[in-house]
Amino acid sequence: MVVGDVIDGNARRCPDRVAWTFQGTPWTWSTANERVNRLADSLLSFGLAHEDRVAFLSHNSHRLAEVYFALAKAGLIAVPINAKSVSREIAFILQDVEARALLVSKEFVPRLGPIESDLKRLRCVIGLDEGHGLPVDYEDLLSSASPSPPSSAVHEDSIRAIKYTSGTTGFPKGSISTHKQFLFNITNYLLHLPFTPEDRCLLALPMPAGVGAQLLAAYAYRACQTFILEKFDPAQVLDAIERERITRIYLVPTMIAALVNEMISRPRDLSSVRLMGYGGSPAPMALIRKAMEVLGCPFYQSFGASETGGFICYFTPEDHQHKLGSGCEPADFRGKQVTPCGREAQGFHIRIVNSEGNPLRAGEVGEMVVRGDSLMSGYWRRPQETREVLRDGWLFTGDMAKIDAEGYIHIVDRKRDMIISGGLNVYSAEVESVIQEHPAVSEVAVVGVPDPYWGEAVRAFVVRKKGETCSAEELLRFCADNLASYKRPQSIVFLEALPKTSSGKVLKVQLRSENWGEKLSPDAPHDLSLNPPAGGSL
Amino acid sequence: MVVGDVIDGNARRCPDRVAWTFQGTPWTWSTANERVNRLADSLLSFGLAHEDRVAFLSHNSHRLAEVYFALAKAGLIAVPINAKSVSREIAFILQDVEARALLVSKEFVPRLGPIESDLKRLRCVIGLDEGHGLPVDYEDLLSSASPSPPSSAVHEDSIRAIKYTSGTTGFPKGSISTHKQFLFNITNYLLHLPFTPEDRCLLALPMPAGVGAQLLAAYAYRACQTFILEKFDPAQVLDAIERERITRIYLVPTMIAALVNEMISRPRDLSSVRLMGYGGSPAPMALIRKAMEVLGCPFYQSFGASETGGFICYFTPEDHQHKLGSGCEPADFRGKQVTPCGREAQGFHIRIVNSEGNPLRAGEVGEMVVRGDSLMSGYWRRPQETREVLRDGWLFTGDMAKIDAEGYIHIVDRKRDMIISGGLNVYSAEVESVIQEHPAVSEVAVVGVPDPYWGEAVRAFVVRKKGETCSAEELLRFCADNLASYKRPQSIVFLEALPKTSSGKVLKVQLRSENWGEKLSPDAPHDLSLNPPAGGSL
Repeated sequence: MVVGDVIDGNARRCPDRVAWTFQGTPWTWSTANERVNRLADSLLSFGLAHEDRVAFLSHNSHRLAEVYFALAKAGLIAVPINAKSVSREIAFILQDVEARALLVSKEFVPRLGPIESDLKRLRCVIGLDEGHGLPVDYEDLLSSASPSPPSSAVHEDSIRAIKYTSGTTGFPKGSISTHKQFLFNITNYLLHLPFTPEDRCLLALPMPAGVGAQLLAAYAYRACQTFILEKFDPAQVLDAIERERITRIYLVPTMIAALVNEMISRPRDLSSVRLMGYGGSPAPMALIRKAMEVLGCPFYQSFGASETGGFICYFTPEDHQHKLGSGCEPADFRGKQVTPCGREAQGFHIRIVNSEGNPLRAGEVGEMVVRGDSLMSGYWRRPQETREVLRDGWLFTGDMAKIDAEGYIHIVDRKRDMIISGGLNVYSAEVESVIQEHPAVSEVAVVGVPDPYWGEAVRAFVVRKKGETCSAEELLRFCADNLASYKRPQSIVFLEALPKTSSGKVLKVQLRSENWGEKLSPDAPHDLSLNPPAGGSL
Repeated sequence: MVVGDVIDGNARRCPDRVAWTFQGTPWTWSTANERVNRLADSLLSFGLAHEDRVAFLSHNSHRLAEVYFALAKAGLIAVPINAKSVSREIAFILQDVEARALLVSKEFVPRLGPIESDLKRLRCVIGLDEGHGLPVDYEDLLSSASPSPPSSAVHEDSIRAIKYTSGTTGFPKGSISTHKQFLFNITNYLLHLPFTPEDRCLLALPMPAGVGAQLLAAYAYRACQTFILEKFDPAQVLDAIERERITRIYLVPTMIAALVNEMISRPRDLSSVRLMGYGGSPAPMALIRKAMEVLGCPFYQSFGASETGGFICYFTPEDHQHKLGSGCEPADFRGKQVTPCGREAQGFHIRIVNSEGNPLRAGEVGEMVVRGDSLMSGYWRRPQETREVLRDGWLFTGDMAKIDAEGYIHIVDRKRDMIISGGLNVYSAEVESVIQEHPAVSEVAVVGVPDPYWGEAVRAFVVRKKGETCSAEELLRFCADNLASYKRPQSIVFLEALPKTSSGKVLKVQLRSENWGEKLSPDAPHDLSLNPPAGGSL
């Protein structure tokens, strides 16, 4: 089975039911599938061949949903680019993946200006929406293409997508996922948290980030109707839930926090919601308890990473009820400020191992490793980095965790130097390498600090060169030119020197003002104002 | 992923929860898994190698459940033998599949007497339960074996099972299914008719027949508790549902009929049943409506065959409610005596084709063909028969069907000469070849006739040799020595000559007194006494 079979099947079985609705316009499975076929035909007619890479840069739309299915049907590889990426990052990905085509919506066209020379290597740059100003237009292509299914060599082991994550070594790297790996994860998700064809799903997560594409495909797999929001906006989400009688939605914890605030300021009828899922970053326990109280719907948490190909463990609705519900003392999770990320899902094997890779016992802290059929095949053209994380079929996640006696997995630290802010991964090394380029900077260390809204906030500790007086504002401006917004430090602290080990390694543990997870004292004050920092956007 | 991962995962995640209960004794996942490991180790210690065939002959028990998982873990191929098989049939399968080992429960040991020479080729014959009288005992083996997981070369494309079906050419043939094909079907089933780990499942279908093994594995996949019944008995089933608060059960229509009778004679509390599934043979609409009324639980029907690797379409609980429910006129199914078998499931592609293999339009009758990842790889060492049914990835089912405008699939006839009686397939050719061996018989033709209890009953039309007066009783005795009970004719009709075409082909259509499906007049009287024929057993 390949991903295109999902939409083909729906077009056959329920042609007149609505596949998705965007900005008030519904698209049936029959129409959506025909448009998908047309796009696939257009792309192939540019001379693209099996497993050629096609990048795209767009907020959510019905067209973006079509792009995912069209690439899958044509046997082309989807390379989503995070909407927050700056020109320099876009150019890096296009080069690294050797993209042959790019689809872009008008909001992002200005970012292409500085990288015009990189675009020359592409077979085509396609403007997605009205007013993009590019020579090739999406709807024009569709109108002149064939509505028949494309002939393609796609099979279950074809690469479906290469997803770029922030890089541990300062450069983003692309994790490779095949049709089979992707479908394994989707069906596994569907049987753990079942959907019915009557479900009405709200897709407010950006499709190119995190599990957005998985959600789109999972909803389609059960032929549910999906309401697509262009961007996350808490008021729009609550309005849509009330208006469309939404039954299922999935968000990152920061978005849940925004919903709680919005609901408090203007309550809506959320009684249609059967299940609200969240994941993608550590979830403060106080936030989830507050959300259960204020939003009043059943919740589940799922946990995974790009490299795991999706969810590998679940903190179920029953877990929420029995462990976090009202009147429920979180005895088992005493002293913890974040929820556990759940228990191992069927189909996966999670172990906690020591630095030699040997399994540890329940309660002992070590690196979380996982086996399962959805794991990425590796990083695109990075055999060395692939070997570091994929060993004998086990993926080394870089998360330091322990499994308690009941099987709940608690993440207590991160081995690799990574921050998860608003559900997006930020590697310290990448941020450090940009700041290090500033002429006034002598040394820099970037860490994540707990943040009730973002989960973690990026903080840079900077030692200036002797005599330099450069301000935090100046450094932040410098970062803004070179880093996607979510990677930029939210605060900069100047130090005389960085704390170091005797061998000269920076002691990041000392730099973290506090550590989320169990190292935090249970009595420590924890501010849950749930207010986004000024200017913060998701 | 391979099948053994399912039980390994449960033993890791919920070691102390009950996996299955048999005759009042519960076995936890931890204990069950250890016993499975021990059996796998024992079998391998007899010198069995990857993909060696291991046959077994037993009613349901906790040990039979262990056998399935142990063979899967050891990389050995399960060859279930239908409990109704006679010695001649058992010998044929052991030879055809080149079995290396046999597991047998005591009830079946007498059937091994006549085929002792065939057993000499086996590495071992293992007695499953107390008092079997064989030299090698199951529990003895387990107690001396290693509880650690066996080291095996099993992978997703390893063959998991070879299931023998009645043969179109007079001999049974074995359909080959891999771990991957089997797991695709199970997870597909689970996401269409979801289970939760809190479900309490009753396994009353014989595991070696039909979808028994699929059900066992599906229940295990979601870590549900399974209550195993040795054999189907309507009173025991209803007692177990009431006593154990069963939530899920799957049966063949004939068993549903028996439950209806039993419930009428002694009502039980079936309020715990969340979903009752059925399939395996045509389901009379009157029976299902009566069952909905008398048993009062939600029903679904699923349809598939050994060759499809399990279910490929579903007639859902909502379909039952909207199409067959009380106060609901079966307008769409007017003139039909059997329910449609449902609509195509996600992950499969079903087509109705003409004799040239070209797709027909909605409403037109042709052969049902299907694509999907659970289809068998082929028939064991029968390339010719495999080529006949598997062409370009499409399985030709031999069922003549049409798909209506709403997508419901109605089976109207069977292309191959097969009868489905009590959920078991009987090929006319196999029965005819046995009867033909009787010295008094000149010609014979075997057809299925509608039967309110069995779905279809086997009827033989016999032309005796000139001067021969052999009775129906004598022919039935002859069949009893050579055919499993479900394959034996339930009636014999003597004729002076068989109706034939001008080219001499027997006109079976004339022999069928009436035909189930739409050729039947809607006004035809249809007796739904639901009484099993005297001496009938499932």
